[in-house]
Amino acid sequence: MTTLFKTVALVGRRNTPTIAEPMARLAAMLAERGASVLIDEEAAAEHGIADHPTVARDMIGRLADLVIVMGGDGTMLGVARLVAPYRIPLIGVNQGRLGFMTDVPLGEMEKVIGDMLAGAFVPEERILLETTICRGDEEFGPSLAFNDVVFSRGSTGSMIEFEIIIDRQFVYSQRSDGLIVSTPTGSTAYALASGGPILHPSLPAVTLVPICPQSLSNRPIVVSDDAEVEFLLTRANDARVYFDNQSDFELREHDRVRIRRYRNTLRILHPVGYNYYDMLRAKLHWGHKLQ
Amino acid sequence: MTTLFKTVALVGRRNTPTIAEPMARLAAMLAERGASVLIDEEAAAEHGIADHPTVARDMIGRLADLVIVMGGDGTMLGVARLVAPYRIPLIGVNQGRLGFMTDVPLGEMEKVIGDMLAGAFVPEERILLETTICRGDEEFGPSLAFNDVVFSRGSTGSMIEFEIIIDRQFVYSQRSDGLIVSTPTGSTAYALASGGPILHPSLPAVTLVPICPQSLSNRPIVVSDDAEVEFLLTRANDARVYFDNQSDFELREHDRVRIRRYRNTLRILHPVGYNYYDMLRAKLHWGHKLQ
Amino acid sequence: MTTLFKTVALVGRRNTPTIAEPMARLAAMLAERGASVLIDEEAAAEHGIADHPTVARDMIGRLADLVIVMGGDGTMLGVARLVAPYRIPLIGVNQGRLGFMTDVPLGEMEKVIGDMLAGAFVPEERILLETTICRGDEEFGPSLAFNDVVFSRGSTGSMIEFEIIIDRQFVYSQRSDGLIVSTPTGSTAYALASGGPILHPSLPAVTLVPICPQSLSNRPIVVSDDAEVEFLLTRANDARVYFDNQSDFELREHDRVRIRRYRNTLRILHPVGYNYYDMLRAKLHWGHKLQ
Amino acid sequence: MTTLFKTVALVGRRNTPTIAEPMARLAAMLAERGASVLIDEEAAAEHGIADHPTVARDMIGRLADLVIVMGGDGTMLGVARLVAPYRIPLIGVNQGRLGFMTDVPLGEMEKVIGDMLAGAFVPEERILLETTICRGDEEFGPSLAFNDVVFSRGSTGSMIEFEIIIDRQFVYSQRSDGLIVSTPTGSTAYALASGGPILHPSLPAVTLVPICPQSLSNRPIVVSDDAEVEFLLTRANDARVYFDNQSDFELREHDRVRIRRYRNTLRILHPVGYNYYDMLRAKLHWGHKLQ
Repeated sequence: MTTLFKTVALVGRRNTPTIAEPMARLAAMLAERGASVLIDEEAAAEHGIADHPTVARDMIGRLADLVIVMGGDGTMLGVARLVAPYRIPLIGVNQGRLGFMTDVPLGEMEKVIGDMLAGAFVPEERILLETTICRGDEEFGPSLAFNDVVFSRGSTGSMIEFEIIIDRQFVYSQRSDGLIVSTPTGSTAYALASGGPILHPSLPAVTLVPICPQSLSNRPIVVSDDAEVEFLLTRANDARVYFDNQSDFELREHDRVRIRRYRNTLRILHPVGYNYYDMLRAKLHWGHKLQ
Repeated sequence: MTTLFKTVALVGRRNTPTIAEPMARLAAMLAERGASVLIDEEAAAEHGIADHPTVARDMIGRLADLVIVMGGDGTMLGVARLVAPYRIPLIGVNQGRLGFMTDVPLGEMEKVIGDMLAGAFVPEERILLETTICRGDEEFGPSLAFNDVVFSRGSTGSMIEFEIIIDRQFVYSQRSDGLIVSTPTGSTAYALASGGPILHPSLPAVTLVPICPQSLSNRPIVVSDDAEVEFLLTRANDARVYFDNQSDFELREHDRVRIRRYRNTLRILHPVGYNYYDMLRAKLHWGHKLQ
Repeated sequence: MTTLFKTVALVGRRNTPTIAEPMARLAAMLAERGASVLIDEEAAAEHGIADHPTVARDMIGRLADLVIVMGGDGTMLGVARLVAPYRIPLIGVNQGRLGFMTDVPLGEMEKVIGDMLAGAFVPEERILLETTICRGDEEFGPSLAFNDVVFSRGSTGSMIEFEIIIDRQFVYSQRSDGLIVSTPTGSTAYALASGGPILHPSLPAVTLVPICPQSLSNRPIVVSDDAEVEFLLTRANDARVYFDNQSDFELREHDRVRIRRYRNTLRILHPVGYNYYDMLRAKLHWGHKLQ
Repeated sequence: MTTLFKTVALVGRRNTPTIAEPMARLAAMLAERGASVLIDEEAAAEHGIADHPTVARDMIGRLADLVIVMGGDGTMLGVARLVAPYRIPLIGVNQGRLGFMTDVPLGEMEKVIGDMLAGAFVPEERILLETTICRGDEEFGPSLAFNDVVFSRGSTGSMIEFEIIIDRQFVYSQRSDGLIVSTPTGSTAYALASGGPILHPSLPAVTLVPICPQSLSNRPIVVSDDAEVEFLLTRANDARVYFDNQSDFELREHDRVRIRRYRNTLRILHPVGYNYYDMLRAKLHWGHKLQ
């Protein structure tokens, strides 16, 4: 009945009434174990949870020792970017449907998280990407991404043209709908839909996946996560760069966008027995072991 | 020194100064052979061609017996949609780079077109698509497309959700960046970049090619061009439908878009010796015959 | 309690003891309705069914008015090739798992087939391919295929090199693991695994799908089923051609293999309410209609 | 006029008469610089080169300080496996066509190699794979591969079934034509033709690329080169494992094949100015920088 983590913040998926009851229950359980509980202020307001102090999302990193996210992978992404500068770990509780990152099932939440607070967990370090946009002498950013940085044509329907430079070496010019620069975490998201490979989370790598390239030989590339990837927009009426598909920035011709691995990794805690391949197999409906 | 086609309209790619001289030359050659020559009024203005009557692009179909397009595949697409209702044939003269449709080389233009006017050509019929958009009791369209009708997310970056119904049979619901409904002509354009098959132009078929579908089993389908394809937008913040990527229409949730083969085909005239596979092989850098 | 089909042959999947009981039951039901029942002699021997005359598989086409196949898609393929010359229809009863072609569920077999005998069915015509191999002055074949004709390297591990000629027009030379020439029926089998499109069964088309081509621009092509496809083996240590993956023939360099649509189609009878897209959706786990 | 490498072995592509003259010329140049030259005994016999001692290919590793390969990537692969245990570096001279690994152009061979002997080179370390096959209590191997270890069905045409276990964790069971386990070096060879990603040579990774998998969600995976990949053959009539497609071994059901990174890397020496992306761009016809 103890906890390794003194202050635990709870964050919930927005506009999800079904989270109210389990969040209140989890908060009570945590308090009982001696943890100080902070409730994401949006969730507290949405669900009327008033028994615990609230915290703005962007203050969680400063105040908590652990964040428990109740929601799906989308909620995890947003929280991950916010807490990455503070090196505090995350646990994801899914709401019925297994997520790529939210692997504590709601039904067994109290038992599993109880054990995890006592130290029974499998930690995993994951990289993020940091992006800076250079326009003449101006610089915008940096912006963080946990899944991917996506360059994409806007609504004009025309392909965009750009050059890719990696570690100051020119790689190619390309005409396409865009390009995905993905972490291993993001490799099972949009990058997979666009034909990219699956990268094991422990791989120190990023992948560049073209979106509908005009040239059929423009295939996905995987490079070291030490690499600096530079995107130079050479021609576009309407192009944007998206961070985890949760925020975006409008690009102009000649903008240079530089992407590097962020200095911190993010630590996700999994229940004991967690296995990345088991999760993949379930999510992708791969073949099970034959008897 | 005769011509099977009495009135011949010349259309040029916009903003292309290098077309001025060959267009004037071709017009003179046509006149010499006894054809009445009409010059696309935009080209006449751009290039200062004043020796022949001009014609607005949308009047060409009513006035000409043949259209010669000087430009690339993009120019052909625009003219094709305009003249399709009038069943007049097209010849395409490329500007140095072989096109999928513009196959008369500029350098041999006078000789080749001279022969074609005398009857030495290979005709080819190609289908177009006609699209109508239903929103409640309102109906928009119809719009023609020669390459493709493309449904696409706009600039919000979120995937769209829709249902496809073919000949009143429900096919699937899909979450993706969009869907391409392509004619055989369009199968070597955007549809190919998105993973679609190449359809021979004589095939009475259309292909449905998903763009980055979330489900990996959503593969391209090829159906008869007699089929009525219906697209029902079930969820989107910002979705559009594009016709040959040259015009577009903003969609709302619950819009139903119906696509059918257009009643007329478009006739393209090729030089004698034309072979679709030779053109494909040159464009796609396929392997040549080994000696 | 009547039947449109006087003589009905029953064929079962080999080495499948669970077919014995339902086959005996189905035979009894058919006899009761006044049909003459013939039992595939292999099934009769395997399952000890002795109440009805037996028939060798290759005589079914001459003697029966209808064949009911109890098994999977593999059994259907073999029977289809045997009966295609005789224009008699097929019904497929699956053994628990929906097949692409075997769509009568075992559990409702008697009710459904009873209705079908009385005329309540949806007929569907499907093409087959006929292949001839020319080696110098010798000719081998013809061989039929209902799914596909597959050219493939053997066990040496080296790619093969060949040329494709369609309707006497050279298409390309290719270096790859092989090539699949598939009917619409076969488009959901091996061709799909190799990156080919799905062809609706009513489409008068065949598709050519390269297997691991060295050149990334060698994409699947769909051509009319009127086309004559010629495969010329230019270089191989060990190459074979397979028919429905159920028989094969060893090829030598310079062999020419000609593939045409077979003169007859095969008629499959489906239960009333059959819908190709429902079947596809179930087999490929596509998204269902959202409420 | 010196050399960092005292003993230099020259190896040539087999059955390539055009190598005779440049090999003799290169040998003379090396001798002039003070290097002891060894000629691959097969090349010496084929080309009648008698001015230098000969060496059996499998003794090169013991005797030479540097190997210069005159040929294509295939010749490099064979030599790489032979010298990998001895940690001696390789230089590749192509015979007119740029190779992925043979990047010294024949025409500038003397100048470029002269500079390289004096220390003007870019070294690159590349991994190899070591494979052991376990059959009951027997063990076969180990075998080395520089490009890939390929599991493949043989000539029966039937797919094979197998399980993949990585670092003792079950990954999936799969039904397919086979599986490619590729190093970064091999990622631009067979793995690319089968849909795999391109891995930068410096990436400490291997990729698993299914060949025509029956399940469409069986996509390529990239894992750390520290991982132990185990392949368990569960069902096959005729399956083989190939090493760089230059040697192979027949597998039986229940065989377990274990693949690990080999303890040594292989060092390739490139001319100054070498850039992996320049080479890729040339080989894959990617877009050049636009001015």
